[in-house]
Amino acid sequence: MSSPPETWREISIRARANRDSKIPPSWLLKNPTTYSHLSDVTSVPRSCGLLTPLELDITESYTAPALVSAISEKKFTAVEVATAFCKRAAIAQQLVNCLTEIFFDEAIERARYLDKYLEENGKPIGPLHGLPISLKDCFSLPSHPSSVGFSLRAFLPDTTPATLPTLLLSSGAVLYVKTTTPQGQLSLDTHSYLWGRTLNPHSRFLTAGGSSGGEAALVAMRGSLLGIGTDMGGSIRIPALCCGLFGFKPTSTMMPKEGTETCELPGGRAAGLPVSVGPIAATAEECKWFMKIMEGREPWRVDAGVVPWRLQIPVKRQLKVGVLKSNGVTGLLPPYQSVMEEVEVALCSAGHQVIPITIPEYPKAFATAVGFMTLLGNRHVYNLLEAAGREPLSPWLKDRMKPKGPKERGLEEMVRLSHDKQQVEQKMLKELWDREGRSETKDSQEVVGGVDIILCPVAGHPTPGHDNWAGVDWTAVWNLLDWPVGVVPVRKVRRGELEMELGGKSVGRQDDACRKLWDPEVRQVFEGAPMGVQVVGRKGMDGDVLEAMERVAEAVRNIPRTQERKRESKI
Amino acid sequence: MSSPPETWREISIRARANRDSKIPPSWLLKNPTTYSHLSDVTSVPRSCGLLTPLELDITESYTAPALVSAISEKKFTAVEVATAFCKRAAIAQQLVNCLTEIFFDEAIERARYLDKYLEENGKPIGPLHGLPISLKDCFSLPSHPSSVGFSLRAFLPDTTPATLPTLLLSSGAVLYVKTTTPQGQLSLDTHSYLWGRTLNPHSRFLTAGGSSGGEAALVAMRGSLLGIGTDMGGSIRIPALCCGLFGFKPTSTMMPKEGTETCELPGGRAAGLPVSVGPIAATAEECKWFMKIMEGREPWRVDAGVVPWRLQIPVKRQLKVGVLKSNGVTGLLPPYQSVMEEVEVALCSAGHQVIPITIPEYPKAFATAVGFMTLLGNRHVYNLLEAAGREPLSPWLKDRMKPKGPKERGLEEMVRLSHDKQQVEQKMLKELWDREGRSETKDSQEVVGGVDIILCPVAGHPTPGHDNWAGVDWTAVWNLLDWPVGVVPVRKVRRGELEMELGGKSVGRQDDACRKLWDPEVRQVFEGAPMGVQVVGRKGMDGDVLEAMERVAEAVRNIPRTQERKRESKI
Repeated sequence: MSSPPETWREISIRARANRDSKIPPSWLLKNPTTYSHLSDVTSVPRSCGLLTPLELDITESYTAPALVSAISEKKFTAVEVATAFCKRAAIAQQLVNCLTEIFFDEAIERARYLDKYLEENGKPIGPLHGLPISLKDCFSLPSHPSSVGFSLRAFLPDTTPATLPTLLLSSGAVLYVKTTTPQGQLSLDTHSYLWGRTLNPHSRFLTAGGSSGGEAALVAMRGSLLGIGTDMGGSIRIPALCCGLFGFKPTSTMMPKEGTETCELPGGRAAGLPVSVGPIAATAEECKWFMKIMEGREPWRVDAGVVPWRLQIPVKRQLKVGVLKSNGVTGLLPPYQSVMEEVEVALCSAGHQVIPITIPEYPKAFATAVGFMTLLGNRHVYNLLEAAGREPLSPWLKDRMKPKGPKERGLEEMVRLSHDKQQVEQKMLKELWDREGRSETKDSQEVVGGVDIILCPVAGHPTPGHDNWAGVDWTAVWNLLDWPVGVVPVRKVRRGELEMELGGKSVGRQDDACRKLWDPEVRQVFEGAPMGVQVVGRKGMDGDVLEAMERVAEAVRNIPRTQERKRESKI
Repeated sequence: MSSPPETWREISIRARANRDSKIPPSWLLKNPTTYSHLSDVTSVPRSCGLLTPLELDITESYTAPALVSAISEKKFTAVEVATAFCKRAAIAQQLVNCLTEIFFDEAIERARYLDKYLEENGKPIGPLHGLPISLKDCFSLPSHPSSVGFSLRAFLPDTTPATLPTLLLSSGAVLYVKTTTPQGQLSLDTHSYLWGRTLNPHSRFLTAGGSSGGEAALVAMRGSLLGIGTDMGGSIRIPALCCGLFGFKPTSTMMPKEGTETCELPGGRAAGLPVSVGPIAATAEECKWFMKIMEGREPWRVDAGVVPWRLQIPVKRQLKVGVLKSNGVTGLLPPYQSVMEEVEVALCSAGHQVIPITIPEYPKAFATAVGFMTLLGNRHVYNLLEAAGREPLSPWLKDRMKPKGPKERGLEEMVRLSHDKQQVEQKMLKELWDREGRSETKDSQEVVGGVDIILCPVAGHPTPGHDNWAGVDWTAVWNLLDWPVGVVPVRKVRRGELEMELGGKSVGRQDDACRKLWDPEVRQVFEGAPMGVQVVGRKGMDGDVLEAMERVAEAVRNIPRTQERKRESKI
């Protein structure tokens, strides 16, 4: 008589025990309860006493390129570096629950091989020689399942590695962990019944964002300098914002995606929004550096979904920035309004040109994006949950996904959405980017176009509490258009800002959800919540975005001074 | 009482009369019946006496770039050049029926403006200054309907110009004609009840090919040096082959397509094969020159469907050519077998490396391409025909299109096809192009991959008689994969080759259709029929293909000598 199949509860217990067993006992926090009352845990790795001075130096004093140089120059061995990041990732896991697959032993062995290679050949094996890179759970690696938050997939082995990790390894990277995603990568808060909830290192009362939430949480803990996420509606950008980091969503055809688990129907990608693969890091420089390395590795040689590309990174310049503060779908809560104004002032102070823009097609574009996101329905998700002994939907999804999911709406619906998309993107191209076309317009007051870059918020609200991220209207439209976008962190919400009043009226259902977060009882969670901006470029012009991220970050660094100057001039 | 709507017969008579009225009486052939018995009419423009020595010089002695230089250097005025090509196009029209819209007056006026511009500014207006460029009927131009072979559209005005002609005009081109397509651009023989049949200038008993058949016929008559066609299954390459010309189908995301009439449902492009826009010309050099000019014009600035690109044209080199002579769907008729062998020998003689390749996935890839081509069904076509008083289907379509067309097969079918496509293209990438991957293989005899370029036929048969082009199995797979392809003409069928016997057995339905063309009564039409090869590159590596087209053309020019050497060595 065969025993009944394991339920999601049983699988989850077994999967978590299996994962936790991969952390050496000597790397466990001595008195975990010491930290249980802490909200911001970013400094625990330094204070907990587990990391040696060398390991603190390695994990805190270097950017990714500087670390690769230090290994190549034999300042550190790859084994020292791998050990330091494995250890720090283990600490991060204990504080914010950001890992799914742990394979420190493989990483150390790989680092040993790289050290030997450098010794014997006198040169690094590739441009990422010795750099530990963390991967979102979805990238297939043999013997490390891509569960993406579904219990039923927790022990399902992948056989073929995805093209991206293969490329990273051939470039010299060290892989050591995969990181948490929401159930099915379907929500904007990283929670699953399989792995539990991932917490935001800056405030464990806040969401880490999703769906690349484990990546962002790990990088914010400096348990990784560079993590790779995926983005189909905001899944790199939202967690990057939540965890105070830079995230870059490239044009979708640039990075290898073969072997990336999406839990959709095979081939379903063709009927949805385009998926982008990209980095999350603590600086804009590291995002650019990584993309330049990827360019040099010519990923189109190993992945048929990649169209050959070259980064055209403009030389440092004064930007013409189109600032979008209203999208017709969701308004901005008061602290975010302040942030947008501060960034505008900072950009002006840095000599950039700031032009307010409006995009009348935005609501239609958002409706089209939602149409694509829901086109195939969610029957396969419900099937997976059902088969795991009725695994429930995650809280974020429970309120947002239809119990049985919309039925597939058919090819005619897809054709209609495609037509809407073509119209919207051609219109936006003409009105925003087409410099030559706009120069003919006579009334220069009316010229909104011809910008180098668009600047906009990531949401109407700062990083909210768990399960409270309101929607993707500020992010998913850029997936629909497949325009490259970078997130630049700006600052956290100040206590005093919680007293500001929210004026105006709701413009719709999405806005309702956002405005509810400003209810006096709810808004208190925002104290210290990270905020940031999106820098949006034209499809295939990813170099423009990578450059603009640096320029915006520079300007943002000067905001305090800018504010002081403002105050001084008022006196 | 309102009169009954015009039937397709009445519309057709009115449309042709309207078109013919645009040809000045002095440009009409004096004794048209003199030519009615002629098969090859390519020399009639020279012999008919309508063109002046200057006009013959302009239309026969220059490539497109040489002509632009000659205008810029004031050897000819733009008006002289425009007049010469308008006149020669008028002659072509009378012999092979290749035009739909004629607007010589606009062309001459435009040329006058360009001459004035050059005079006043001392420099040309753009890189195409003064070059007459002919357009396939599908490109929208205000006041010149894009009927694409449907009577119901014959007088339907377009209001907005397509992005491509706009870009050509801003580059200095002169537009003067649009050219015939089959009914709905749906077949491989350029026939419609609206405009009649377009004939092949090399032998009016042969098909001009389709769907860009009017373009190819006009260029073969030198009524245009450079024509723009579209290709979704072979529609640039097949007519180029039939008319003994070069044709280039770029990667689909390179050239502007907005405003290109396809008579499909709005947005239907998203559910079909990707459409490419590209040039047809008498030389490979002209195709490359045109694409380089387009690169410089940055079409992504005016068309949201264009992804920024840069041509990477390799320096002249020895190629590693993978030769595909069997696709598992259609075999080659004897003359085509000879041509393939001759090209192989010629390439070897020129120092290139020739490697026989097989593609086991080819039949699956072809089935997938057919799946996409038929996904949306043809109801809209039948509706258009019905509304024109039951306009019949063209002969080529009548035997091949289902009376009511397949019903839309739904989103799940599209998702399944997309999955098949992803699998096939990843497999082919690994087996054909992935040089690094293959170098690990030990048994070098088994290594088929790592080629620079693929060489294959355009069909199993030489250019056939009217309505006899058998199928798209040699061409549509490259649309499915969106790989760039150039056609290089090789030679015509020799009388002696008609006695060769066809061995082997049919491999299926497609092959049956091809083999039937070798029936002793049917095959006689092949005498003098053009043959050529396809040069296929990797998606986005269009520069490789443009360069290889030149290398293959060079090798082909030496075939007679090669053959002589072969014969000599046998003595």
